[in-house]
Amino acid sequence: MEFLKGDERLDYLLAEDLRIIQSPSVFSFSLDAVLLSRFVYVPIQKGKLIDLCSGNGVVPLFLSARTKGTITGVEIQERLYDMAVRSIKYNELEDRLDMIHGDLKDMPAQLGYGNYDVVTCNPPYFPTPSNEEINENEHLAIARHEIYCTLEDTIKVSSQLVRQGGKVAFVHRPGRLMDIITHMRAYQLEPKRIRFVYPKAGKEANTLLIEAIKHGKPDLKILPPLIVYDQNNEYTAEVRELLYGDN
Amino acid sequence: MEFLKGDERLDYLLAEDLRIIQSPSVFSFSLDAVLLSRFVYVPIQKGKLIDLCSGNGVVPLFLSARTKGTITGVEIQERLYDMAVRSIKYNELEDRLDMIHGDLKDMPAQLGYGNYDVVTCNPPYFPTPSNEEINENEHLAIARHEIYCTLEDTIKVSSQLVRQGGKVAFVHRPGRLMDIITHMRAYQLEPKRIRFVYPKAGKEANTLLIEAIKHGKPDLKILPPLIVYDQNNEYTAEVRELLYGDN
Repeated sequence: MEFLKGDERLDYLLAEDLRIIQSPSVFSFSLDAVLLSRFVYVPIQKGKLIDLCSGNGVVPLFLSARTKGTITGVEIQERLYDMAVRSIKYNELEDRLDMIHGDLKDMPAQLGYGNYDVVTCNPPYFPTPSNEEINENEHLAIARHEIYCTLEDTIKVSSQLVRQGGKVAFVHRPGRLMDIITHMRAYQLEPKRIRFVYPKAGKEANTLLIEAIKHGKPDLKILPPLIVYDQNNEYTAEVRELLYGDN
Repeated sequence: MEFLKGDERLDYLLAEDLRIIQSPSVFSFSLDAVLLSRFVYVPIQKGKLIDLCSGNGVVPLFLSARTKGTITGVEIQERLYDMAVRSIKYNELEDRLDMIHGDLKDMPAQLGYGNYDVVTCNPPYFPTPSNEEINENEHLAIARHEIYCTLEDTIKVSSQLVRQGGKVAFVHRPGRLMDIITHMRAYQLEPKRIRFVYPKAGKEANTLLIEAIKHGKPDLKILPPLIVYDQNNEYTAEVRELLYGDN
């Protein structure tokens, strides 16, 4: 199959009737990316959306089923950028989706300030790793660790790209909530909705979804908890609905 | 019954085998006070605890069953302070519990800085009310609205009273999370544990419990969600256990 390189696979995004190029050794999307794509408010008929730390383009692909607007993905790793470009082409979404190969920190100067209605970001979760970890697998290390960008970079750039009243949504680990909130407020992004994701009933949250509005008024809502697995270690009905569109 | 005045009642704190003086027209404790008393970490064998905005002393009374340490309650309304004093006496807890009638903002000068292991507070939830609301029922207005103290006052004083490494626990509304976190960090209280309370599965949280450590290291945990009512509008097993000690 001409679209695929090396150990890449063409996987289904089931609920969307789309397909996405993945590679276990380079990048495969996570449940977190799906949750982010479902969580963020999007304009339905039109609008300009941008996704930072876009990886293989999973968030733009998912979002394309929720909005008729345009969606730009930004990815610093050429190998992942290239996978995303081919997935967009395979799904024949080139008229609305495009990828930029570059550093997100250059985007405000390149794309302009306040030009986007929505910014999404599934950033690296972990601080800078050891050299050993980087040598082990550079692609995964860059996607998971704050090597090319810090959390503050991603929040600062999101604030620069989004218009007044526009929305910025992140997925991250609850342990970073304090930092996320502190940086968001410092860059005029007011958190409005948070949803915590718990692996199982009775367990601590391991993921958080947060949406802020540029220059929004303080009024934070904590959405209902999302539980991922039931007592039989199977996806709950709500997660199946998010992943596969059934329940 | 000599202990009671006017429309006061002597209610049971069921799980604790204690009794508490309440008055529907002046002050009755809420589920929030119970949740705060159960949520906060307490030293079991000894220690100095202090409860701000103590009302009729419900939090000190609940805490007395969890620790052998001493517990001081601070209440600005003489009518409520008086109820708390009589409840402590009725339960024969004068050797470990005491009440102070005063303004919490005077407590650091009066009681010293950094003298307490644990500070709890169930502060007024709402901004200053209209004169009409105050005239309607001054006691309830003071307990519910930021008339004598602001959220920042309560957090600042908590930080002044607690020792290095000691714990400060609040119960409040999720809409104030941003303010709580911002003030806590400003006063060297690092949030470590948050639990959100949801009235029902699938609903937004309406209460939050938060515990911070003075000069603690950043490492926030989001505890499992607490659901108050089941689908039949009855208390869930977990809430029954917290309230009545059974399940």
